[in-house]
Amino acid sequence: MNAVNISSNKSFGGWNKQYSHFSEVLGCQMRFAIYLPPQTSTGEKVPVLYWLSGLTCTDENFMHKAGAQRVAAELGIAIVAPDTSPRGEEIPDDAEAAYDFGLGAGFYVNATQAPWSKHYQMYDYVVKELPELVESLFSVSSRRAISGHSMGGHGALVVALKNAERYASVSAFSPISNPVNCPWGQKALRNYLGDDRQNWAQYDASELMKASVSDLPEPVPRLVPALVDQGGADDFMVEQLKPEALEEAANVSGYPLELRRQDGYDHSYFFIASFIEDHLRFHAANLK
Amino acid sequence: MNAVNISSNKSFGGWNKQYSHFSEVLGCQMRFAIYLPPQTSTGEKVPVLYWLSGLTCTDENFMHKAGAQRVAAELGIAIVAPDTSPRGEEIPDDAEAAYDFGLGAGFYVNATQAPWSKHYQMYDYVVKELPELVESLFSVSSRRAISGHSMGGHGALVVALKNAERYASVSAFSPISNPVNCPWGQKALRNYLGDDRQNWAQYDASELMKASVSDLPEPVPRLVPALVDQGGADDFMVEQLKPEALEEAANVSGYPLELRRQDGYDHSYFFIASFIEDHLRFHAANLK
Repeated sequence: MNAVNISSNKSFGGWNKQYSHFSEVLGCQMRFAIYLPPQTSTGEKVPVLYWLSGLTCTDENFMHKAGAQRVAAELGIAIVAPDTSPRGEEIPDDAEAAYDFGLGAGFYVNATQAPWSKHYQMYDYVVKELPELVESLFSVSSRRAISGHSMGGHGALVVALKNAERYASVSAFSPISNPVNCPWGQKALRNYLGDDRQNWAQYDASELMKASVSDLPEPVPRLVPALVDQGGADDFMVEQLKPEALEEAANVSGYPLELRRQDGYDHSYFFIASFIEDHLRFHAANLK
Repeated sequence: MNAVNISSNKSFGGWNKQYSHFSEVLGCQMRFAIYLPPQTSTGEKVPVLYWLSGLTCTDENFMHKAGAQRVAAELGIAIVAPDTSPRGEEIPDDAEAAYDFGLGAGFYVNATQAPWSKHYQMYDYVVKELPELVESLFSVSSRRAISGHSMGGHGALVVALKNAERYASVSAFSPISNPVNCPWGQKALRNYLGDDRQNWAQYDASELMKASVSDLPEPVPRLVPALVDQGGADDFMVEQLKPEALEEAANVSGYPLELRRQDGYDHSYFFIASFIEDHLRFHAANLK
């Protein structure tokens, strides 16, 4: 495994870098960003927070706009931000190049339907290939947390709920909480997974959370502590995000979820920047 | 005077907003961004930091990437970010649409040469028209500070040096410190002001700083305290920025300048974000 460094910017005493590498899982060249806090310069192995971005984003949005590096430097946490889909001219896209499906909208699933299944395997990329690459290249430990925004909040919750042994904690900003019941989720899941809705539930955070305790065999596995922030003035909340479904799922299953509604905040990075410090401190406490 | 609100995003308990207005000085429609800290919601009149951006930027870059809102909210300082030139289809641009002259590159001067002089009057816009508009529209006082990056660092220093009575403090990141002696500055000043180099010095921070004490009549006016950060790994430092000229000017005149060289940092917003807190606290101390 190797990766080519394509940018380096000093940031809060650490380094913000971008790498390009060939992904075997996705069958294409991919780019990711990493923030390496100052502690790594002395060879200390720091834990990693994976950040999954929302529709239309790349590896850059979070690193440019969230203002996370300051607190990550203080806490000694690396941050890795992958892209939001496979990329390249050979990758199939939505027929109308819509923003909510195809390129920039991989939804962090393993597609089973042609023509998507050949490249759209973002779940395996995020859960397996990327951490393996990151842990082989950088001064990081295998202690991991995961977070994300909107489509990436959905991805972070699903990944953590399905892989409790791999993540110390999970958080999300304005996640698509119940994709089987919203237009963005239904379009993506139908195209990537086919018409059988039973296959969709494995990528629905509310369905997974509901089943996390009561439906699982004993002994109950460790549950990954979850923090979610939802802006009260988010234009997508009612139709697409449905935080109430996640709250209900946590109530039913007794899941350790803290869901906060932040009055007046919208779906933008201004919202994320306002509360990212809380999320980083939450993850740091769980990564200890 | 009026302005139309075109965006509002809650940010750290305050509001990040954009406005469109017709500028009489520039003869075109202009956009600016303002961060209103939470203190303004109770009618408190807060001081204003004006931020002048660099080449190619608009009113958005600083607000999206510098991470300034957190500390501005804590300190109770509004931030206003104007655009970097007049805008619109009727505005003349560089013949080759180069990034370093014309649209996005007004250099904060009052042009005297055709065809630029009709619209390129950014100095008067920043010093007079914009503050008047801001102070008429928002819950802000007439206490002002000014800062900027690169071309905007040049602008901030020039504006403060020429208007000591209007600004409590000035700061800059990687400013074009001696434009009469660098390619960016010479191209802009020749085009906007004509071939007579004597007219260029009024927009050269090093020239103004050198003359700030010794050449001015008694009583010596108040000197605006200045803080400058320069990245040590900035690719533009040697040819375009010339911080040593500013240091020399301050040494000659005894000007209250603190110029810090930050090892390893480049010309990007990753650098600005790393030190903007220091600048905000410097301005807050002087705005008291």
